Amino acid sequence: MDTADTRIVATYLVETPQPLDVAVEVLAGEQSTGTFVAVPGETDALRERHRARVESVRELGVGRTPALPGAKLPKGASEGVYVRAEVKVSFPYHNFGASIPNLLATVAGNLYELREFSGLRLMDLELPEPFAKAYPGPQFGIEGTRRLANVYGRPIIGTIVKPSVGLGPDELRELVRELAMAGLDFVKDDELNANPPYFPLQERVQVVMEEIERAADKTGKKLMYAFNITDDVDRLIANHDIVEKAGGNCVMVSINSVGLAGVAYLRKHSHLPIHGHRNQWGAMTRSPFLGMEFRAYQKLCRLAGVDHLHTNGLHNKFFESNESVIRSVQDCLTPMFGGYPVMPVLSSGQWAGTAIESYREMNTVDVMHLAGGGIMAHPAGVAAGAISMRQGWEAALAGQSLEEYAAAHVELQQAIGKFGQN
Amino acid sequence: MDTADTRIVATYLVETPQPLDVAVEVLAGEQSTGTFVAVPGETDALRERHRARVESVRELGVGRTPALPGAKLPKGASEGVYVRAEVKVSFPYHNFGASIPNLLATVAGNLYELREFSGLRLMDLELPEPFAKAYPGPQFGIEGTRRLANVYGRPIIGTIVKPSVGLGPDELRELVRELAMAGLDFVKDDELNANPPYFPLQERVQVVMEEIERAADKTGKKLMYAFNITDDVDRLIANHDIVEKAGGNCVMVSINSVGLAGVAYLRKHSHLPIHGHRNQWGAMTRSPFLGMEFRAYQKLCRLAGVDHLHTNGLHNKFFESNESVIRSVQDCLTPMFGGYPVMPVLSSGQWAGTAIESYREMNTVDVMHLAGGGIMAHPAGVAAGAISMRQGWEAALAGQSLEEYAAAHVELQQAIGKFGQN
Repeated sequence: MDTADTRIVATYLVETPQPLDVAVEVLAGEQSTGTFVAVPGETDALRERHRARVESVRELGVGRTPALPGAKLPKGASEGVYVRAEVKVSFPYHNFGASIPNLLATVAGNLYELREFSGLRLMDLELPEPFAKAYPGPQFGIEGTRRLANVYGRPIIGTIVKPSVGLGPDELRELVRELAMAGLDFVKDDELNANPPYFPLQERVQVVMEEIERAADKTGKKLMYAFNITDDVDRLIANHDIVEKAGGNCVMVSINSVGLAGVAYLRKHSHLPIHGHRNQWGAMTRSPFLGMEFRAYQKLCRLAGVDHLHTNGLHNKFFESNESVIRSVQDCLTPMFGGYPVMPVLSSGQWAGTAIESYREMNTVDVMHLAGGGIMAHPAGVAAGAISMRQGWEAALAGQSLEEYAAAHVELQQAIGKFGQN
Repeated sequence: MDTADTRIVATYLVETPQPLDVAVEVLAGEQSTGTFVAVPGETDALRERHRARVESVRELGVGRTPALPGAKLPKGASEGVYVRAEVKVSFPYHNFGASIPNLLATVAGNLYELREFSGLRLMDLELPEPFAKAYPGPQFGIEGTRRLANVYGRPIIGTIVKPSVGLGPDELRELVRELAMAGLDFVKDDELNANPPYFPLQERVQVVMEEIERAADKTGKKLMYAFNITDDVDRLIANHDIVEKAGGNCVMVSINSVGLAGVAYLRKHSHLPIHGHRNQWGAMTRSPFLGMEFRAYQKLCRLAGVDHLHTNGLHNKFFESNESVIRSVQDCLTPMFGGYPVMPVLSSGQWAGTAIESYREMNTVDVMHLAGGGIMAHPAGVAAGAISMRQGWEAALAGQSLEEYAAAHVELQQAIGKFGQN
């Protein structure tokens, strides 16, 4: 393994006012053997073995306005011409080894700050086999999650506890009872609700699991509940164990709160599916020429070991376009190291009506489809909300229109009446 | 503590095409009790106890172009008017408790994605006392670092091992010997060099510490060396222990690689100063209307427990302006919870000549001043490079110009000749 032949390939979208070939060589130098002046130890032999290599450069066009501030114009230039390009750079594996934290310092480190660039975004990553050996990836994935939730042939349908924060033990108990009896497959805590002083995780787990077990005794169906165990790293395992001991069957973690390293740490000890929430992701991706594209991010998340990963949903309440959501779901469903299956999680602004379009555009049922308000605010109640979601997917799988199917399905009809106008 | 009166105040820079008051209420709602439709459980009592509150809104102007894509125009509008404002929002402490990961999910979570905004940046954070109880902060800080390095009355002067990656045991041994004998105060690994397969940390520590101890026997001065221990979380403590057992006196960690949670975890177990490297920070801050301002970031880093924190240096090779660097140093030197002292680290493009301007603008010697090429590429060698840096600061403290002082100090003169033309 310890050869310069095993390489990581990173694809970047860049923008630069400098000569493109010079700028990309600065990137490759800065992120491997170079510094701003030549230093004695940078021999040809060392460079040969350790330097990053520009593999390809594909120009994409030219603009007059920089995407980001702070880029340096060429000497003597009074105004800039900003060239955009897709650039592939490869890094020797042996420079950092199979370590997500040290991979990040190389492929996503100080290069964002280089003034040779007025834009730089990590678009994709190709990782060699040693990473698969070091990180086992999703433990449950799609099949394992289906097995635990006992749902086949359609999406796993779920909701989010709302209001996000503030429910006390009695209110939560009542709500979970209703959700569990409603025939839902899945419920998750909101990312804002983890281990708050007013209602600690330990107590929440007890209340929730009592109701889930009680409902399972009656219905024969055990709700999958993703407890938000996000916390300081030295609490993650303890929190996981609280859930496991109480008979829980899923944990949720805010990926960017505990870091990919925190997720990988949890994965090593976890016996439950890890529901990966990507809050804070907007800060990393919303500027089109900065940060990271979801294609690269989801690979890192799968490497770290999440089993479910939020992708947003169609017509979400956030800035993200439907095209981006569809691409994200496809990325999640594309094998990595021949596997590493992760279940994409559609959520935000979802209701029964988004099922048909989701199926048409994504051509899969291997998703979790979560509706918060879209289930909890259904005019005939939560159970009707859950039924309406299943009906939406039944319509999709039957190739019928929403209205056609709703004619004989009252819960779907009610959902259209309430949410169809948005 | 468990009352709605203890609050966290977050200051945001926002930009919105929506009516400003509506947009900021969406932010406050989304990050506490609300969702996109009213749900049954969101009672007045719950809202009263748990809802985030808009504390102030200060308009900053109006533009015609959105800073970020994906914002929703008001109904019927064909083009946007984008209002910019500084907004303070307070969150009840009891919604998440003294937990950095869960604080992040609230103050820096899904709000970046809201389509009500065409720009959103976390500028500052005011944290209540319970955070100080939960997180002890820097263990060594400025005084502890000075004590270990035995440097008073001037900056701690140091360099970075260059080339960043690729040196083998013999080459590194020779270099460290030279650096240690040169009278430098401090040396750090590059962030690209952590625990690579071609030369694992364990072996690097052994080689480096042998040379440091040998030099200390001769010179009476023990070099402070920050070993880059960045790694998977379950290796962090082990890596720290390798350094400590070998007699090392500093560890370095890539903050954004292990996450703030990873840093806090290391801090709880560490017996050594933690040198906080902020690579990847550019991705979080370079888009002016997205991500985070350093003022907020450095507070989070200090809370997590770094003793040293990179701030960039004047005339650095990155995109950051001198004004921003100066502000960053001032932020680091501003007490937090009445203390939490962190030592700012000036680096990137530094050499002896940047000392005078740094002192004039920052008015402090409580910094680490690191020069990579500026020491290692000095024409008369590393020792002369180190001497030239001290001379730069002597000139600054004596109130002399660089040229004046250089007249009688040859190493400084040589440094000017080599680096003064950049």
